[in-house]
Amino acid sequence: MQILVLGGDGYLGWPTALHLSALGHDVAVCDNFARRSYDDEMGVDSLVPIATLDERVAAWLETGSRAIKPYIGDLCDPDFVHAMVAEFAPDTIVHFGEQRAAPYSMIDQKHAVYTQMNNVVGTLNVMYAIADIDRDIHLVKLGTMGEYGTPNIDIEEGWITVEHNGRSDRVMFPKRPGSFYHLSKVHDSHNIEFGCRIWGLRATDLNQGVVYGADTEQTKRDPRLATRFDYDGVFGTVLNRMVIQAVLGHPLTVYGNGTQTRGLINIVDTVECIRIASENPAERGEFRVFNQFTESLSVRQIAETIAQEFPGECVIEQVPNPRVELENHYYNAKHSKLEELGLRPTLLSMALIDHMFEVVERHRDRVDLNAIMPTVSWRETTSELPRAVGELAGT
Amino acid sequence: MQILVLGGDGYLGWPTALHLSALGHDVAVCDNFARRSYDDEMGVDSLVPIATLDERVAAWLETGSRAIKPYIGDLCDPDFVHAMVAEFAPDTIVHFGEQRAAPYSMIDQKHAVYTQMNNVVGTLNVMYAIADIDRDIHLVKLGTMGEYGTPNIDIEEGWITVEHNGRSDRVMFPKRPGSFYHLSKVHDSHNIEFGCRIWGLRATDLNQGVVYGADTEQTKRDPRLATRFDYDGVFGTVLNRMVIQAVLGHPLTVYGNGTQTRGLINIVDTVECIRIASENPAERGEFRVFNQFTESLSVRQIAETIAQEFPGECVIEQVPNPRVELENHYYNAKHSKLEELGLRPTLLSMALIDHMFEVVERHRDRVDLNAIMPTVSWRETTSELPRAVGELAGT
Repeated sequence: MQILVLGGDGYLGWPTALHLSALGHDVAVCDNFARRSYDDEMGVDSLVPIATLDERVAAWLETGSRAIKPYIGDLCDPDFVHAMVAEFAPDTIVHFGEQRAAPYSMIDQKHAVYTQMNNVVGTLNVMYAIADIDRDIHLVKLGTMGEYGTPNIDIEEGWITVEHNGRSDRVMFPKRPGSFYHLSKVHDSHNIEFGCRIWGLRATDLNQGVVYGADTEQTKRDPRLATRFDYDGVFGTVLNRMVIQAVLGHPLTVYGNGTQTRGLINIVDTVECIRIASENPAERGEFRVFNQFTESLSVRQIAETIAQEFPGECVIEQVPNPRVELENHYYNAKHSKLEELGLRPTLLSMALIDHMFEVVERHRDRVDLNAIMPTVSWRETTSELPRAVGELAGT
Repeated sequence: MQILVLGGDGYLGWPTALHLSALGHDVAVCDNFARRSYDDEMGVDSLVPIATLDERVAAWLETGSRAIKPYIGDLCDPDFVHAMVAEFAPDTIVHFGEQRAAPYSMIDQKHAVYTQMNNVVGTLNVMYAIADIDRDIHLVKLGTMGEYGTPNIDIEEGWITVEHNGRSDRVMFPKRPGSFYHLSKVHDSHNIEFGCRIWGLRATDLNQGVVYGADTEQTKRDPRLATRFDYDGVFGTVLNRMVIQAVLGHPLTVYGNGTQTRGLINIVDTVECIRIASENPAERGEFRVFNQFTESLSVRQIAETIAQEFPGECVIEQVPNPRVELENHYYNAKHSKLEELGLRPTLLSMALIDHMFEVVERHRDRVDLNAIMPTVSWRETTSELPRAVGELAGT
């Protein structure tokens, strides 16, 4: 298959491109290096050093693999998106190309607006390119389990049949997301479902859990193929961050009482889920949703698992929760559809955690401890008023 | 109360400002004249001539009424919004300030992206201004009944209690909107509900039906106080358009078989609903939804009512439906909350239709018959590919 991976220079986009290429697909990646620029903006860096995209692509060729074609450009540029889709003529577009950190979207008004515009407009441009060029292209779009929030009912995979006043309908599962980032994905889901209805697009929306893990079979082949490993308070996800805290002798920081439960998935399962979704496309006009995670754990359980496995001293510390989220909530989210299509989950295990300790140990001199703690508050807004209100009245 | 009406130069914003001012509130209007510029873009015009905002504001003062303060600026400019909210210090912000035509949003990719960006960013900027300046400000936001689509279950007012696998939760009513415009309002609703949760905002989301009618008590007082009356295929809503067709001896055009049922509301009830919502604010942290319409009619029933009342010949003609929407669907949408707060509905009546015939007759020389028919298709996309794909590969 011809597969175009949007956001193909990122934490998951790059390993996905390698995995699909290794399995014989003809892969192109697209990126505008937004993720690298966020590092510059926040003054943080990946724990594992990452090569430039040029170096990555060259290193992959050197391993004797199929060439991966890079497209450099911004999904918010409609002409670029149209030209790329027309030229590469993909069967499948895998869309990781969005700003993907909840705390980044909550920094301030500017970052909230940027996140929603960047994500929603980029996705609209991809949808229009498909509608104009070839409506058979399968859109595999990365969403997040965070779109659902923590409802008091079981979370189904995207759709739910509601019985109400003696009648019944199959409707999109009601969402209650927890940040302007998560909201951008909810907006995307509604837009794409509409595209399936009016244009007969085929789409798979993957509501992914929290991803952990440092590498895949392919990224391990050469240091230049490594993917990023984030641990900072903005882009670092919970399990990766705690592994680093353990190795550095830093307390494992749990936000609030730690009873918040989340779906988790190993990075090696992420890339496999993308393969499965791509090789088993949605029907024309179908808006299909898979919940892409393999196990549910509370934040405290994650901390305890890591503390238990770590060979040295390890303290768990509660810090005030910077987010607005429920604690002690019901959580039962379904995740059987990808397994029905063949996913064999790699669950969190001692061996896996040991391997992560080893990766962190190798790069421990690169850690900036100041970057770990949360700095973004959900409750406070920080915009400054323009000093001079001036002459506002227009007439 | 201090009430700021965003989009206060529009079809409904202007009569709302007059109604609130007449009842003793201290009113300001904000507009960037986007609606007038769409007329220029599409080469159409309001049937009823409208004065400039300067002339309107001056005419209102001449009637001996309270001054209405105009703010000229774009809600997508965050500094402008902050400065305006800080200076006027409203108790209530009534938000009509969005691109509001489904066909306009479906013209092409550019108009779809514009509609979502304009509406979503404008509303985010208003939310941040409230969060930064005064979280007690009540946001009264115009949504649309079109957000719900036509589900096979009763449509509740914004929230629904879902029973599922023996458990229950109160969730936002699942939406299935029918255009990129309607989707923009769904995105707004999700963003605002989140603002209520994290910042304790107080918000009323008014899911309004199709509005008809040419004037209110105040707009009739002076020709310079008149509001716009649209009949073109892009901005004209169904009932207003059919009244004009009848007067001109043009067939009443029904899209598809005309069994699509919609909630309707008279313009005099719209302005009264805004008063009721403003004077009975939502609680801090409450995201409250009212369905703002007074009766449900099918498109065919509307055509038949008008044909029956019209004194001359009147033919009803079916034209292919340019939209993608269900026909012969179930429709039972609740609308009791505004009536519980005191709304006395003005239902569609012969007297009302007669008055509309009279308004149209007065301005019949201004009608451009070519503008009436639908020109925008939901199914086709029209973007042109960039001629030269050129050097896309970046490395």
